Amino acid sequence: MTAMDELPLVLVHVLPPFEIPFKGRLQSRFQLIDSSDSTFSPHASVLLCVGPAPVSSDTLRHLPSLQCIVGSSAGVDHIDLEECRRRGITVTNAGSSFCEDGADFAIGLLIDVLRRISAADRYVRAGLWPMKGDYPLGSKLGGKRVGIVGLGKIGSEIAKRLVAFGCRIAYNSRNKKSSVSFPYYANICNLAANTLGKEGVIINVGRGGLINEKELVQCLVQGQIRGAGLDVFENEPDVPKELFELENVVLSPHKAIATLESLASLQELIVGNLEAFFSNKPLLSPINLD
Amino acid sequence: MTAMDELPLVLVHVLPPFEIPFKGRLQSRFQLIDSSDSTFSPHASVLLCVGPAPVSSDTLRHLPSLQCIVGSSAGVDHIDLEECRRRGITVTNAGSSFCEDGADFAIGLLIDVLRRISAADRYVRAGLWPMKGDYPLGSKLGGKRVGIVGLGKIGSEIAKRLVAFGCRIAYNSRNKKSSVSFPYYANICNLAANTLGKEGVIINVGRGGLINEKELVQCLVQGQIRGAGLDVFENEPDVPKELFELENVVLSPHKAIATLESLASLQELIVGNLEAFFSNKPLLSPINLD
Repeated sequence: MTAMDELPLVLVHVLPPFEIPFKGRLQSRFQLIDSSDSTFSPHASVLLCVGPAPVSSDTLRHLPSLQCIVGSSAGVDHIDLEECRRRGITVTNAGSSFCEDGADFAIGLLIDVLRRISAADRYVRAGLWPMKGDYPLGSKLGGKRVGIVGLGKIGSEIAKRLVAFGCRIAYNSRNKKSSVSFPYYANICNLAANTLGKEGVIINVGRGGLINEKELVQCLVQGQIRGAGLDVFENEPDVPKELFELENVVLSPHKAIATLESLASLQELIVGNLEAFFSNKPLLSPINLD
Repeated sequence: MTAMDELPLVLVHVLPPFEIPFKGRLQSRFQLIDSSDSTFSPHASVLLCVGPAPVSSDTLRHLPSLQCIVGSSAGVDHIDLEECRRRGITVTNAGSSFCEDGADFAIGLLIDVLRRISAADRYVRAGLWPMKGDYPLGSKLGGKRVGIVGLGKIGSEIAKRLVAFGCRIAYNSRNKKSSVSFPYYANICNLAANTLGKEGVIINVGRGGLINEKELVQCLVQGQIRGAGLDVFENEPDVPKELFELENVVLSPHKAIATLESLASLQELIVGNLEAFFSNKPLLSPINLD
C-alpha cells in the first residue's frame, strides 16, 4: 500500500461533482488537491480541468511549477494557450472521446429537423393523427448541400456520415485540408451563401456563441431559414422562449457529445494522460500549441 | 390537341385524393377511369393502384384484358401476385423512390431513441433545463450491434448508413445475399437473440403488423427492452395510448418514406411506367413474379 502523501500531486481546477467511481479511481492513484488551496500551488506540476472554467494567465501565474494541463473538453478556448506556449506547459484535450457521439447527434438533429421527427412525435402524442390526418411532409436529406464549419475531429466524422446519406459536402476551416476533396471555402459567408438560404437549416453542436442567437431566433420566427437543430445556446441553461413555440426547431440541452460511453472513454483518457505525465511517457491527447 | 377519348385508358383502383399537379399531369396523357365503373372493366389493359387497397383474385376476375398493374408502394402484399403470375400480368412497384428516405428516417429514429432527442426537446420546451439541470445521458450508436430484418432496398440503404456510424450489422431475410458480408441469420429469433436484449431498441419503418403491438407495448412499459422508434402501427391512425406517456419511445405518423422529393420521384416513375406500357417499352420498376 502507498501512503496518500506519496501519491503524485494533482491540482484540480474548480473541483467538480465527479461521478463517484471516477473520483475514487483517480484518488486511488493521485493526491487530488483543489486548486484554490494555495499551500500546494507553488509545487504543483499538473493541473486537471474537469470543466470549461477559465485558466487565465493570472491562474497560471500562481502555478510556477506547472508543466502540464490535463483538460477534459474538445475545445480549449478557456485556457490561455499563448501563455502555456510561452512557458512550455503542455495541454491535453478530450481527444477523440466525443467526436463520434457529437457527429451522431448532429446527424440526428439534421434528420429530425428535415423530417420533422420531434414535431411529429408531439403531434402523435397529442392525439392529433386520427383527428387531423396526415402530418405535413418533410424534406429529403440525400442530395442536399451541407456546409460544415470546422472540419476537425467532429466535423470530419459528420462528413463521413453525410457521404453515406448522399449529401454534397463543402466546408470552411482555418486551412484547406489536403486529406479531403470536398470544396473548401476560406470565407464562411461564401459557404453559407452556397449551402444555406431560405430552404436551409442550421445545426449547432459547437458553442452557443458561434451564432448570433437573437438574429437566429428572428430568422426562424420570420421564416428566413427553414429550421434549426440547436444543442447549444448563448446563455445556457436559458433558451430563448420564442423558440419553444416553433415547430421548425429541435432544442437539446447541450448533450451532443455526452453519452455513457463517451464519458467512460474520457475518464480513461484523463487517467491515461495523468499516468503518462508522471511516468514521463508521451501524453495521449496533447494539443499542438505551435 | 388530342381528344380525351383518344387518350390511352388507365383504370384507377380506388381513386385517391391525388395531388392536383400530378392528377392533371396524368389526365393530360391518359384517360383515367375509376375501376368501380364497370363499363370499361372488360377492355382495360392497365390498372393504376395509388394506395394499398387490395387487388384480390376477385378484382382481377372482373378485368379480363388486364396486362399490367402499375403500383405505387414499395411492398405489393396487397396484390394477388400468384394470380398475376398465372395470368401473365406484370406488376410494378415504387422501385427505389422511397428507399433512401425510408432509410434516413430509420436512422433518425434510431439516433433519436438512443440519444433521447425528442424527449430532451420536450424537456427544454417545458422549461425544465434551468429548473432540473442536466438531462439523463443517452447511449452511443457506434459499435452497437444492429439486426436488420429484410435486406431489400430500404434495408440495404440502412446498412450502408450504419456502416458509416461504426455499427456491427447482421441481417435476416428470405435468402442469404451474396452481395454483402454481414452475418446472415436464417431465423429471425436468432437474430434478435444476438442483437436486441434488455438494452436493445426496436425501430419499425415497415408495417405495424410486423410486430405484435400488444406485446411490444408491454415490453416497453415493463422495461424488457430499452426503447422503440415506431413509424407504423397495427391500427393506424390509432396508436396505443400507453405509448403516449413513455419517454423511451418516439412515435411517428407513418411518414418514414414520404418526403416532397420521394413523392415527386414516385410520380415520375408512375408516369414513366404507364408510358412504357403503352409504347411497348420495358417497364421502369417491374417486380419479379417468379
